[in-house]
Amino acid sequence: MEIVVQKYGGSSVCTTEKIKRVAKEIKKSKEESQEVVVIVSAMGDTTDDLLKLARSVSNKPDSRELDMLLNTGEQVSIALLTMALQDLGCKAVSLTGAQLHLETTASHQKARIKDIDLSRIKKELSQGRIVVVAGFQGVTEKEEYTTLGRGGSDTSAVALAAKLGAKCEIYTDVEGIYTCDPRLLPGAKKLTHTSYEELIEMASLGAEVIHPRAVELAQKYQVPLYIAESCSKVEGTTINGNIDYLEASLVTGMAVNRDDIQITLRDLESDSHILADVFNSLAEFEINVDMISQLLDKSGRMNLSFTIPEVDIDKARELIAYYKEDWGLSDWWIRSEVVKVSVVGPGMRTQPGVAARVFRLLAEASIPILMVTTSEIKISWLVPAGYEAKAVKVVGNDFELTTKK
Amino acid sequence: MEIVVQKYGGSSVCTTEKIKRVAKEIKKSKEESQEVVVIVSAMGDTTDDLLKLARSVSNKPDSRELDMLLNTGEQVSIALLTMALQDLGCKAVSLTGAQLHLETTASHQKARIKDIDLSRIKKELSQGRIVVVAGFQGVTEKEEYTTLGRGGSDTSAVALAAKLGAKCEIYTDVEGIYTCDPRLLPGAKKLTHTSYEELIEMASLGAEVIHPRAVELAQKYQVPLYIAESCSKVEGTTINGNIDYLEASLVTGMAVNRDDIQITLRDLESDSHILADVFNSLAEFEINVDMISQLLDKSGRMNLSFTIPEVDIDKARELIAYYKEDWGLSDWWIRSEVVKVSVVGPGMRTQPGVAARVFRLLAEASIPILMVTTSEIKISWLVPAGYEAKAVKVVGNDFELTTKK
Repeated sequence: MEIVVQKYGGSSVCTTEKIKRVAKEIKKSKEESQEVVVIVSAMGDTTDDLLKLARSVSNKPDSRELDMLLNTGEQVSIALLTMALQDLGCKAVSLTGAQLHLETTASHQKARIKDIDLSRIKKELSQGRIVVVAGFQGVTEKEEYTTLGRGGSDTSAVALAAKLGAKCEIYTDVEGIYTCDPRLLPGAKKLTHTSYEELIEMASLGAEVIHPRAVELAQKYQVPLYIAESCSKVEGTTINGNIDYLEASLVTGMAVNRDDIQITLRDLESDSHILADVFNSLAEFEINVDMISQLLDKSGRMNLSFTIPEVDIDKARELIAYYKEDWGLSDWWIRSEVVKVSVVGPGMRTQPGVAARVFRLLAEASIPILMVTTSEIKISWLVPAGYEAKAVKVVGNDFELTTKK
Repeated sequence: MEIVVQKYGGSSVCTTEKIKRVAKEIKKSKEESQEVVVIVSAMGDTTDDLLKLARSVSNKPDSRELDMLLNTGEQVSIALLTMALQDLGCKAVSLTGAQLHLETTASHQKARIKDIDLSRIKKELSQGRIVVVAGFQGVTEKEEYTTLGRGGSDTSAVALAAKLGAKCEIYTDVEGIYTCDPRLLPGAKKLTHTSYEELIEMASLGAEVIHPRAVELAQKYQVPLYIAESCSKVEGTTINGNIDYLEASLVTGMAVNRDDIQITLRDLESDSHILADVFNSLAEFEINVDMISQLLDKSGRMNLSFTIPEVDIDKARELIAYYKEDWGLSDWWIRSEVVKVSVVGPGMRTQPGVAARVFRLLAEASIPILMVTTSEIKISWLVPAGYEAKAVKVVGNDFELTTKK
């Protein structure tokens, strides 16, 4: 019998009423004579609430104990969802990451899946049970509980689907993948099909529907993904295979990210060791750098801008103050009110002129550009906060990302 | 180094502020150069809240899934308490029942402890860590999570102390064991010492400080108990050894229980098979009977009264309706507004006249007695609700259970 892995996110199970609705949907899938494995996240804002509790007890909660705490969120959901299924007359059983022997590395809060022991899950499925698995969590060789980090439940679902040779359905609170967030670009189109590659770019850009890490895993093991709204009859988005370049659209999606700030270091010595030093020290402080832009001025001095997550602003200040003299840095600033806007499209790879068209549109609309980076299928640019809505509108409409012109 | 097992109940850890206070107390114990093992319950009303959640999903939640759910309550507490200890600079680690390999029977919600594997706990203690263990929970041979039923955390604490050869300190929200609940008998005395036997009688009577099951276990393995208020300097109650009969007081304690109802079956055939039938069928319906009183009338017909938990009132009605004809029952009634008052005292065993003195006091105060039962060290009687305060006062004062006469 075919196996399907379904993942329901926190917003789909945020109340007991919603849990009961999800149970009815799962029952339908089971009645379509499939074996069903369900991955479920913690209810609503549970994880954030638990983090708040931890911080009210300790300023720097230990990462092992934090995982001990966070693990409870999903454990509550799996128990309740299983009860709801049983109440509908379904045979069902819940399993924690530890009971499933979903073995991970020992890096708490960012554990990576090493392997999943399928014996328990297969035994339960063979007895006709729906298996409800706690997403986001795992266990180490030494029986320590771990969590997989944000996007962990998506990753659990794809990993299980990969091991079981199953398809993976991700149910969420949106109808599928859109060319752009409809709140930003009214009339944004829903994509019925897309490729892993585009979805990874879209997800990293903050489309918030599925974590890029999970899509990368799906691509690696060629797990067919289907993303749709939970408890809805509306068709979602199917993701399989790679881009068909001949037919590829110029631009298929657009995203906005407000989480970063921009740091500019001016008048540095033009020495590649300095450049390496800067980014090495950021890495040592565990600060992720997103966009990087580097230029030499007329006299051969280097100007450098980069963006980092806003949460790391204090660490960055500390670091720059510490290394200032080593780097011969005389002038620097932080700009925190910035927004990154990006367009993604496989067609860019083969058809030139997308960047030019984007810059012309922005110029015509008098939108300042603070910084630009590009990849093979993506162009991102930073604008001062407040300009992003206009940027999305002019670019989105021109590239026909909306259903109405 | 001497090991001490400390148990903190739900009311001692009901907020993160209280958790931090408890952490300070534990730190002090550790500094007195003892190895410390802490057992902690779920925060405040967590267990009841989880039960409500379960019932909002299913009318009859599966018992395995209920344990999956309930286990999260203590897991939250151990993580938070461990973080609070670490925040004070203590080395500490939390362990769930499963990680501790606290093996139980597979009876969900009322599992019994089979054995505890001490290897993990000893390893952690030898590394100088305070070990924070989730009370109330265990795990079966097949890695299924269980709970030990109400009073389970007390039982976990005593069981661990027994295995570790340690003393066991139970910290709660009262200063120790009193001759009677001070809310009922103003001026009730606190006992600085008592015996296991008296405490078992007191605990079964609803003294609510420690579960009788835990005291029985402590008696069996002669684990010294100490019961005191958490985060207080006031001396609590030490429990060790058995009653010294020569010195025993006539009456050492008094308790009140409002949880039962009285059922009376009248004019039954006087046949011991009927008596056996009645209590067999109650047992089959899993209804616990507390007091039993049986009398024959002049014509040799049998009248029977007994008390059962109020929660079982519907089951009892159903059962009586079903068996009515078999038992030849023509007349029966339920009295739900009743209260059981009890006095406990080892001295009763050797000194007669306690019952007579109690009945005289009640008669002088015009308190109606609905039913009486006695054991070697206890007399219990049922009064109509509303009379219990007066009964406690006249008996308590006469037997000198208060500090002022």
